[in-house]
Amino acid sequence: MSDLPNFVSINEEGPREGFQIEPGPISTADKIKLINALSETGLKNIQACSFVNPRLVPGWADAEAVVEGFTAAEGIKYTGLYFNGNGLDRAMKYQGKLTLSGSISLTASEGFTKKNLNRSHAENVAAMKRQASLHLDNKINVNRIGIMAAFGCNYQGDITPEVVINTLKDGMTIAEETGSEITVFSLADTMGWAAPHRIERVIGEVRSQWPEMEISLHLHDTRGLAVANAYAGLKMGIRSFDTTVGGLGGCPFAGQPKAAGNICTEELVLLCEELGIETGVDLDALIEVGRLAEDIVGHQLPGELIHAGSLDAFRRNIEQ
Amino acid sequence: MSDLPNFVSINEEGPREGFQIEPGPISTADKIKLINALSETGLKNIQACSFVNPRLVPGWADAEAVVEGFTAAEGIKYTGLYFNGNGLDRAMKYQGKLTLSGSISLTASEGFTKKNLNRSHAENVAAMKRQASLHLDNKINVNRIGIMAAFGCNYQGDITPEVVINTLKDGMTIAEETGSEITVFSLADTMGWAAPHRIERVIGEVRSQWPEMEISLHLHDTRGLAVANAYAGLKMGIRSFDTTVGGLGGCPFAGQPKAAGNICTEELVLLCEELGIETGVDLDALIEVGRLAEDIVGHQLPGELIHAGSLDAFRRNIEQ
Repeated sequence: MSDLPNFVSINEEGPREGFQIEPGPISTADKIKLINALSETGLKNIQACSFVNPRLVPGWADAEAVVEGFTAAEGIKYTGLYFNGNGLDRAMKYQGKLTLSGSISLTASEGFTKKNLNRSHAENVAAMKRQASLHLDNKINVNRIGIMAAFGCNYQGDITPEVVINTLKDGMTIAEETGSEITVFSLADTMGWAAPHRIERVIGEVRSQWPEMEISLHLHDTRGLAVANAYAGLKMGIRSFDTTVGGLGGCPFAGQPKAAGNICTEELVLLCEELGIETGVDLDALIEVGRLAEDIVGHQLPGELIHAGSLDAFRRNIEQ
Repeated sequence: MSDLPNFVSINEEGPREGFQIEPGPISTADKIKLINALSETGLKNIQACSFVNPRLVPGWADAEAVVEGFTAAEGIKYTGLYFNGNGLDRAMKYQGKLTLSGSISLTASEGFTKKNLNRSHAENVAAMKRQASLHLDNKINVNRIGIMAAFGCNYQGDITPEVVINTLKDGMTIAEETGSEITVFSLADTMGWAAPHRIERVIGEVRSQWPEMEISLHLHDTRGLAVANAYAGLKMGIRSFDTTVGGLGGCPFAGQPKAAGNICTEELVLLCEELGIETGVDLDALIEVGRLAEDIVGHQLPGELIHAGSLDAFRRNIEQ
């Protein structure tokens, strides 16, 4: 297990992922409360909101009010998600409080691109080129290529590592043509098709093409394998993960409204702690935020630690 | 990944584990329905009931009626759980329909032994010696040593591999003294303290003492790490697991009534299938039984595939 990293960086996406899919309206005040609570756990990266079309994602119609309302803590990078120039304009009004950086977002599945974005892959490449230029024109770095459905797709089935590589190459071409300096590839298991060997193969093949590139994993627990997949990633030295507190979330466009959300932040932190990997996160504080998230959404969340508690809490009790 | 087994044998414990913890009374008819449905999935080992004291586990007061009621399918081993001579007497009435074999059950945590059995470890060793002799007197094999809390304990904290080894040695002494021929060690993560490296260390140390012994894992998903732990076990060549359909269950004596149950059968089967390991189980049929189990208990079960469906179901749809 010599490739395990010493430190894992967690990008908490609970507020953004979680509140886009909940059927009940979540109040602006509750969203702010969750972000403020997350800011007290040691997390250093929090995706706070989504500047998407309110007609498509009504749960984020109050993005501006949320950003205005939460209290930015020092040392934490707060980000917002957006997909187009209009979203960028909205986000730029909060530059400073939000850390803005651009991403070239492509999908390894043409089927999902059509379903999710109503575009062909070629149209998406053109759109992402415009989007990257728009960022650079506004003096905002574009340092990341994100690949959705990198391990499989409900609409297209298994995705080979070759397709992921080709999609990344398309992203790198956009980067070259626009002058974007890419430092991170984010590979997303958007619909829960990954299994540990698939994680190993894709990461292995991406690494052999781009040995120096940082790879970040965005895992969904749709079929219960997210933690095993994260473990496979950790063993390959992956040190950056997107997660959601309590396992909030799910993909509203993947055709499975009741499916589980992202890998749960608490479970990844527990796994890391037990493996001796630092995360900087206070797990017991985070579990309390998971409980708050469960109260806010008003139904049981998939995160198991909300109900079981951390191992360290038991260890401390036993020592006393 | 060369140590991955070609075939994994699954011991389905959903009926027994699941119905001992559910607060609402589950009807005898529903228990029988679940066992009959499981018999159609390709599973070859089903723990159908528990002959325990009905005052302690009222959910299994109808064990006899369940055994009489289900339809035994050819080629499936149905078993019952019991802890003492009285339970053995009850089980022996159904010898033939039930496959009986004895187990020397010890616990790596003295704290849990006291809490769960109200005995010291020494008293438990003496009781297990009597129990093994009782089996052999009745011409029933004793081929298994089971170790509860082999990876940690809510009442005692971390359990070192050394303690597991010593507990197994106590079991082997019982086996020698009674003339039991042990072929399997079952290591149970009764309260969800295992993490992948802990699985690796304990299995590694047990193997170095007893290289020829088959090791079986009984994992709980109390803190969400069960599938990652199973993956670590598979990579060490473990080819026998206890599981529960839908993730039914939980340990009623571990002090965490809302904690998740055993590793979910569907998730282990999916993991194996994706890794190219055969289980003999029809995953889509099994998912339907998970849905039936959810209907029977009347609340959402932790198994994710109940809601997301299998990957093969998507693959077939896409091919058409």
